[in-house]
Amino acid sequence: MITTKTAVGIDLGGTNIKAGVVDGNGKLLSRTSIPTDAAKGRDVVIDRMGLAAEEVRQKAGLAWNQIAALGIGAPGPLNPKTGVVAFAPNLPGWVNVPLKDIFEKRLPVRVQVGNDANVASFGEYWMGAGRGTNSMILLTLGTGIGSGVVLDGKVWEGADGMAAEIGHMTICYNGVKCACGNFGCIEAYASAPSMVRRLKEAIAAGRPSSLADKATRPDGLSARDIHQAAVAGDATAGAILEETGRFLGIACANLVNIFNPEMISFSGGMTDAGEMLFEPIRKEVKSRSFQPGSATVRVVRAALPDTAGIIGAAGCALKALETSAS
Amino acid sequence: MITTKTAVGIDLGGTNIKAGVVDGNGKLLSRTSIPTDAAKGRDVVIDRMGLAAEEVRQKAGLAWNQIAALGIGAPGPLNPKTGVVAFAPNLPGWVNVPLKDIFEKRLPVRVQVGNDANVASFGEYWMGAGRGTNSMILLTLGTGIGSGVVLDGKVWEGADGMAAEIGHMTICYNGVKCACGNFGCIEAYASAPSMVRRLKEAIAAGRPSSLADKATRPDGLSARDIHQAAVAGDATAGAILEETGRFLGIACANLVNIFNPEMISFSGGMTDAGEMLFEPIRKEVKSRSFQPGSATVRVVRAALPDTAGIIGAAGCALKALETSAS
Repeated sequence: MITTKTAVGIDLGGTNIKAGVVDGNGKLLSRTSIPTDAAKGRDVVIDRMGLAAEEVRQKAGLAWNQIAALGIGAPGPLNPKTGVVAFAPNLPGWVNVPLKDIFEKRLPVRVQVGNDANVASFGEYWMGAGRGTNSMILLTLGTGIGSGVVLDGKVWEGADGMAAEIGHMTICYNGVKCACGNFGCIEAYASAPSMVRRLKEAIAAGRPSSLADKATRPDGLSARDIHQAAVAGDATAGAILEETGRFLGIACANLVNIFNPEMISFSGGMTDAGEMLFEPIRKEVKSRSFQPGSATVRVVRAALPDTAGIIGAAGCALKALETSAS
Repeated sequence: MITTKTAVGIDLGGTNIKAGVVDGNGKLLSRTSIPTDAAKGRDVVIDRMGLAAEEVRQKAGLAWNQIAALGIGAPGPLNPKTGVVAFAPNLPGWVNVPLKDIFEKRLPVRVQVGNDANVASFGEYWMGAGRGTNSMILLTLGTGIGSGVVLDGKVWEGADGMAAEIGHMTICYNGVKCACGNFGCIEAYASAPSMVRRLKEAIAAGRPSSLADKATRPDGLSARDIHQAAVAGDATAGAILEETGRFLGIACANLVNIFNPEMISFSGGMTDAGEMLFEPIRKEVKSRSFQPGSATVRVVRAALPDTAGIIGAAGCALKALETSAS
């Protein structure tokens, strides 16, 4: 238990705003998910965040004076000390938004803003796969690769709140160009779009695949198609999935040598592929990183794909209250 | 100030045992350096460590009951919780040595054993280049690349005391084979031996160099020769040094994206090359890592090449006392 207090957690996404009331044991007392309506602009989104918070408070049957804090996990570069979101690619009009100040004016609680991936890693550490560990890294596989690092039970945010951009760790300094401008980032090898790119290249090179037709249609192929085809026995899709696992394993071996963590957990749709993805990850970790760290680390699927963001946002806010009180 | 107490710090190297008495402000009250005599075996080395500790205690004019702790920075994989050194490649006969127990039996003080590079990073953070920062990474350039990571004023040791093996971060997954068995470790590109290898390759490929003669003699060429020739205007040596800086910069860019630290400091003879080494490091950091982390991080030369190990060992021991008391 972090505290006897209770907080509201908000997970602000480009598509949905998820919110919940979370107690000091990490128990979710109520939750909701409403559309973000990002296209309607910044002020509408902020109002909708307030609405979601109000809805879960009422659902939990608590008055605002029974709630100690509001935690928000937000996308984009942001400063966790000031609670200002610098910008958010998926939220039009979001430039230098002082989220903390805005919500501290609206609500009678302390507000804590954190990077969405960092906050989710804390949720996963606190109540998910990482329960009982002291150090855990979460990697979120999707269009990009998000991540958060929990050390000694605390999110490591770095000097500017920019730590844990693990998706942009170079694993090949003269490798594939990444969307970020750098070369050879793990994201450029193992994100969903790069998996699709690699399968299309394999098909173009004459490898047979049940996805050959779909691959010729613009935007016709998703990472989900690939891992589903792989699981169904498509050898080319299987090879692409295995290669993705190997790339992720190289990144994980680096994380083991750098952090010597107890756990690395993965979330995102791609983890539905199960052992076809995890087996090559673990193999690379074993062959590329040092003992005993490579034996200690557990490489697992995250346990809270839907709620880690809410629980983590609330948990980080409660943790910040405790730290400032002590 | 960590504490009002005082500790002895020992920096156990393959060639020399360095020791000193250090107060809670990080002030070195006395120091010594004596040969390790590693070839004489484990028990002789342990006796000599005791001798060095006794010498600096007497030099400082303190009784043992005025000293609160003994901190030891030791090479090789070791467990900081138990204080057992698993093995040490440069110390013959060192297998599973319970250093903490041995010295707690000999001396009336608490003993804290840490990895030498981790301990040195704490010294550098506490009293050297990292003074005033909250997070600092030290990289030690030599035959290998050692490193330590200080976060929030504490060494991050990891689950097994094996964290911060940054020299074995892969920067090219299908790259040069490293002595550790992995491929593409930064150590395989930017250590002293790899610099020598790359210069020899350049000379063999017909590049002119003032070191051409020396390069043909077995073991005739050192990293020092290369950076000295580079500083003296040898273009080929200069290109090798610059390339070394670029490789280190790629590793630093990863560290910025992963940790968002306030400082990365470098120690080791190669840092004598000054801006010829640091300028390409900073350039890669700027081009490969994210803002504002890439602007925040200061990439500098370490300030305590001789004493970081002693001061850090004592400091970690004092810090451990404070933590266990609170």
